[in-house]
Amino acid sequence: MEGSSPSSLQPVVLSDPTSLPGNGPHPQTGSPPRQGGADPPRTRPHGLRPRPGPPLSSLLLTQKEAVEMMDQIVYWVREDPSGLGRPRLPGAPASESMAVPMMLLNLVDQLGEADEELAGNYAELGDWCARRILQHVQRDGQAVLENVSEDGEELSGCLGRHQNPGHALEAGWFLLRHAIRKGDPKLRAHVISKFLLLPFRSGWDPDHGGLFYFQDADGLCPTQLEWAMKLWWPHSEAMIAFLMGYSDSGDPALLHLFYQVAEYTFRQFRDPEYGEWFGYLNQEGKVALTIKGGPFKGCFHVPRCLAMCEEMLGALLSRLALAPSPGSGFPPAVSPAQQGAK
Amino acid sequence: MEGSSPSSLQPVVLSDPTSLPGNGPHPQTGSPPRQGGADPPRTRPHGLRPRPGPPLSSLLLTQKEAVEMMDQIVYWVREDPSGLGRPRLPGAPASESMAVPMMLLNLVDQLGEADEELAGNYAELGDWCARRILQHVQRDGQAVLENVSEDGEELSGCLGRHQNPGHALEAGWFLLRHAIRKGDPKLRAHVISKFLLLPFRSGWDPDHGGLFYFQDADGLCPTQLEWAMKLWWPHSEAMIAFLMGYSDSGDPALLHLFYQVAEYTFRQFRDPEYGEWFGYLNQEGKVALTIKGGPFKGCFHVPRCLAMCEEMLGALLSRLALAPSPGSGFPPAVSPAQQGAK
Repeated sequence: MEGSSPSSLQPVVLSDPTSLPGNGPHPQTGSPPRQGGADPPRTRPHGLRPRPGPPLSSLLLTQKEAVEMMDQIVYWVREDPSGLGRPRLPGAPASESMAVPMMLLNLVDQLGEADEELAGNYAELGDWCARRILQHVQRDGQAVLENVSEDGEELSGCLGRHQNPGHALEAGWFLLRHAIRKGDPKLRAHVISKFLLLPFRSGWDPDHGGLFYFQDADGLCPTQLEWAMKLWWPHSEAMIAFLMGYSDSGDPALLHLFYQVAEYTFRQFRDPEYGEWFGYLNQEGKVALTIKGGPFKGCFHVPRCLAMCEEMLGALLSRLALAPSPGSGFPPAVSPAQQGAK
Repeated sequence: MEGSSPSSLQPVVLSDPTSLPGNGPHPQTGSPPRQGGADPPRTRPHGLRPRPGPPLSSLLLTQKEAVEMMDQIVYWVREDPSGLGRPRLPGAPASESMAVPMMLLNLVDQLGEADEELAGNYAELGDWCARRILQHVQRDGQAVLENVSEDGEELSGCLGRHQNPGHALEAGWFLLRHAIRKGDPKLRAHVISKFLLLPFRSGWDPDHGGLFYFQDADGLCPTQLEWAMKLWWPHSEAMIAFLMGYSDSGDPALLHLFYQVAEYTFRQFRDPEYGEWFGYLNQEGKVALTIKGGPFKGCFHVPRCLAMCEEMLGALLSRLALAPSPGSGFPPAVSPAQQGAK
C-alpha cells in the first residue's frame, strides 16, 4: 500500500479478484451485497480503503501488507461492514452470503500455507469460516443455499432459495483442504457428500451438459436473467473439486465426475483457434459473449484450475507408480491438495 | 406519505417503477448507478427517503404528495444525489445515464398532463431534461449512447460505448410528446430520426428478430451476460414509439415498423395458454425465464403499451373516417399522443 515500508518481500498473490469488495451484486452469487451502513466508511484496523488504480489481482503484496489487508477484511466480515460503503436499505433482510466465509477461508488457507506462525494465528478464524459455510447446508442436508440468515436459518423468498452450484463446489474444495489440514475424516466425507456430489446432481444440465449458473432450491424459475448460462469458472472450480475429492478419497465416482466436467469444459469453453477460454455460453453451449476477459473474467480461475489439476494429476501418477501392483487398490491419500494453488 | 394531510385527492400513478431509486445497477440500462456519496443521506426538500413497504408502483399518491416527491427527485437529479445513499467509489468516471433525464421528462409529462399550472411550473425542467437526453446522440448523430459525461461527451471504454435500443426508443416517445406539446416540428423530425429509426436499425436482430437488450456502439461484444436476450419492455416501448411516430408524421415506414415489432411481440412474448406476457426470451426467441412477474417485471409496461396503442389506433381510425376520401393522403397530426398514458 502507498507509503508503507514493507518488512518482508515475500510476495503474496491475492485470492479470487471477483470476491473483492466492490459495487453492486456479487458477480458469482447474484446476491445483493452484504448490507452495510450509509455512514462514512469506517476502516478501523489499518485504514485500508478500496482505491483507484490497477486491479488488485495484478498487485503483488508483501506479506506484511497482505496481513494488514487480511486484518481489515476480517474486521469488515466479523465486526462492521459499514466501511465498505455499501448502502443499507431499510427492509432488506439481514443475510449471510456464502461468498463471505468461503473467500475468507481461502485467504486463511493461502496466508497460512507457507508460514506456520500465520497458520496458527488464523486457525480459529479458519474454524469460524468453516462453521459459517457449513450453515449453508439446509433442508435436512438436501440443498446448499447461497444465502442464509445470520444464525443459519433459511431465508424466505427467492433470496433464500437461491443456489449457485459452482460456488458450492468451490466452497467444497476450500472446505476439503481445511478438513484435510485438520485431519478430520468425518468433515472430509461430509464435504464430499454435501458440497461436491449434491451441487453436481442438482446443478448439471441433463439436456445440454454443463453446470447451470443459478438455480432455485424449489425448482422454480430463478429471477436472474443469466441463470441457465454456462460460465467458465464453475467448471474450473468443479474440476479442482472433483480431482481433489478423488485424490483424498480414492472414490472412482469422483474421478469420473472430474472427467465429465473436464470433457465438457475443454470441448465447449476452449477456443481452439486463438487459445484461452471463452467465459460465457448459452444453455445449449453456444458462445454467448466472445470476450476472453471482462469485468469479472480475468487471469485467475483458468490458471489456478490448470496449475492445481496438473499438480494433483502428477501426484496421483506418482502414487500409482509407487503402488505395489496394478489393481491392488488405490494408495492412501497423502493430501496432495495441500501443495496446490501456489 | 405517512403523516401528511393530503390537500388534493386526485390520485397520481407513479411512472416506471424500474426507474425508481434503488440499489445496484439500473435494471434497464445495466449501467452502474449514478455516483452518490457515502455520507449520511441528505434529503433536503421534504425529507423523503426510500422506505420499506409495498412497491411504490402500487401506491396511489395525492397530487400534493406527488409534487413533494417530484421536488425530492429533482433535488437528487439536479442538486445532490448523495441522499440516495449510493456509494461513490474513487476512480469511477462522472457520467450521466440517459435514464435519469428521460424518466424525469416522463414525470414532467405525467404531472403536467391534467394541470396547466403544474405544466407551467415544470416547463423549464422539461426543456432541461430534453436537452440532457439529446446530448446522448453522439458520433455525428450516428449513435445514441446510454452514458455520456456530465458535459455531453462520449466516455471512454465500454461504459461509453454502451447502448440500449429499447431505452432509446422509450426516450424517443417521451421526447416526441415533449416536442409535440411544444409545437416544435424540427425537434419532432430529429427525434423520429435519432431515437426511433436509428436504434431500431442497429438494435433489431436480423437473424432471429426482436430487439437486442444491450449493444456496443463499435459492434464489439457487450460485457453484460444478457446482452443478446429479448426482453418484453423494449418491445412494448417500441410499439408505442412507432405508433406515436406514425400518428405524428404520417410516415408509412413507421407504421410498418410498428407492425413488425407488434407481430414479433405478440408471437413471442404472449403466453397463449395462461395469458400475460413472458418477460425474458433468449436470442432465438425461446422463453428463458418462465416467470410472468419478478423484481423488475411488474404490472406496468404491458398495460401502458396496450392502453396507449389502443388509444392511438382508435384516434387514427377516427381520423381516417374523417378523411375526405380513401387515398387522399394522411390527415394532419392532431397529437393524439397527448391524450395517452393515463
